[in-house]
Amino acid sequence: MFDHIKVIAFDADDTLWVNEPYFREAELKFAELLEDYLPQHSAVQELYKTEMANLALYGYGVKGFMLCMMETILRVTENTAHPDLLHKAIRYGQEMLGKPIELLDGVEAVLQALNGRYRLVVATKGDLLDQERKLEKSGLAHHFHHIEIMSDKREKDYRKLLRHLDCRPDEFLMLGNSVKSDVLPVLAIDGHAVHVPYHITWEHEHIAQPVIHQRFRQVNVITDILNLLP
Amino acid sequence: MFDHIKVIAFDADDTLWVNEPYFREAELKFAELLEDYLPQHSAVQELYKTEMANLALYGYGVKGFMLCMMETILRVTENTAHPDLLHKAIRYGQEMLGKPIELLDGVEAVLQALNGRYRLVVATKGDLLDQERKLEKSGLAHHFHHIEIMSDKREKDYRKLLRHLDCRPDEFLMLGNSVKSDVLPVLAIDGHAVHVPYHITWEHEHIAQPVIHQRFRQVNVITDILNLLP
Repeated sequence: MFDHIKVIAFDADDTLWVNEPYFREAELKFAELLEDYLPQHSAVQELYKTEMANLALYGYGVKGFMLCMMETILRVTENTAHPDLLHKAIRYGQEMLGKPIELLDGVEAVLQALNGRYRLVVATKGDLLDQERKLEKSGLAHHFHHIEIMSDKREKDYRKLLRHLDCRPDEFLMLGNSVKSDVLPVLAIDGHAVHVPYHITWEHEHIAQPVIHQRFRQVNVITDILNLLP
Repeated sequence: MFDHIKVIAFDADDTLWVNEPYFREAELKFAELLEDYLPQHSAVQELYKTEMANLALYGYGVKGFMLCMMETILRVTENTAHPDLLHKAIRYGQEMLGKPIELLDGVEAVLQALNGRYRLVVATKGDLLDQERKLEKSGLAHHFHHIEIMSDKREKDYRKLLRHLDCRPDEFLMLGNSVKSDVLPVLAIDGHAVHVPYHITWEHEHIAQPVIHQRFRQVNVITDILNLLP
């Protein structure tokens, strides 16, 4: 089924390296800041509400997340928060930006096996500088022909990426951990997709129903992709 | 001198449209927030110090600017600021992200005259989502073959852009308002550059000495570029 593939695009966060757990960790620390005001679960829910309200304005990434932590603290405490809470929220965010990169199992083996046989690209959303920095830190940059940092991963964004790569949809395979961002829009524009689940998915990326499609496969671990390719 | 040019890259902020005045306006409103603590000039200086300290971490753009306003308020007030100040700083930043696009004089005429004769691209640094949104709002997107949002504009970033465009340095002309970002690194990699000064320059972009170089010209207004091209 993947006979005509020329370009393989990899999502980055939680496909190539650990990301979502760092957000979860930060959310828990954030909730602790508000423990005098709200139960932990509600604090996380309030933060998510703020993120969704600002998503169109801020886009994805740590800086927007930091701004949302600040805004949530101010709202929940009705502008009575001790400024120390805000100071800590900034620090938590800055720590996230400085995290080391932890590659996921099998990633290097897969890239090594495919490098030279396909044009490999990274197709990720998020903050431009932060994603470039992560790719550099990862030591994986030399495997990739092109890095596309996308402001979103909707059908029109993938169409733009394909034009840009001068690649037909039936020659394109996207591989990632998010059914919503890495699979459905790619299938919708006639590309191929492989889902490699990660054990944590951000609520915003969650899709309940299973995908069944002739140009789609789900694998358990990233190295399984090697068995699907000719 | 511009005989072999095939690709013309335009900086965006303060070259195609108004940008820096919005930052100056926000800085003044920010300084007013701190008027009980610092004279206006010192507040702006403190903010600039914070921006420089975080530039490598946050990169360019409004979200980083917002985070720096918050951090500066907390530092200057030694964590005693009324949270209302922080709330206002968030609002000022969100207002910046929602500003309409005001095209600079002559921009549309220049793009119309050059479209079809050259590959036109936008090469701008800043926040990915914000710059894409501004380009869409500007109504200029259809003139451009490619939009490159760069995390920085150093020599290595331009080298990457040229590889990406499959363009030789002597076929490349960069046009922008910043000598530091749009001119010097481009000349250093053997490209051509035209400086179109804007009446306000961010302190970080300021270069004191004049540039004299055989592949460089300065013009007074953007439409002058049409007289320099064959």
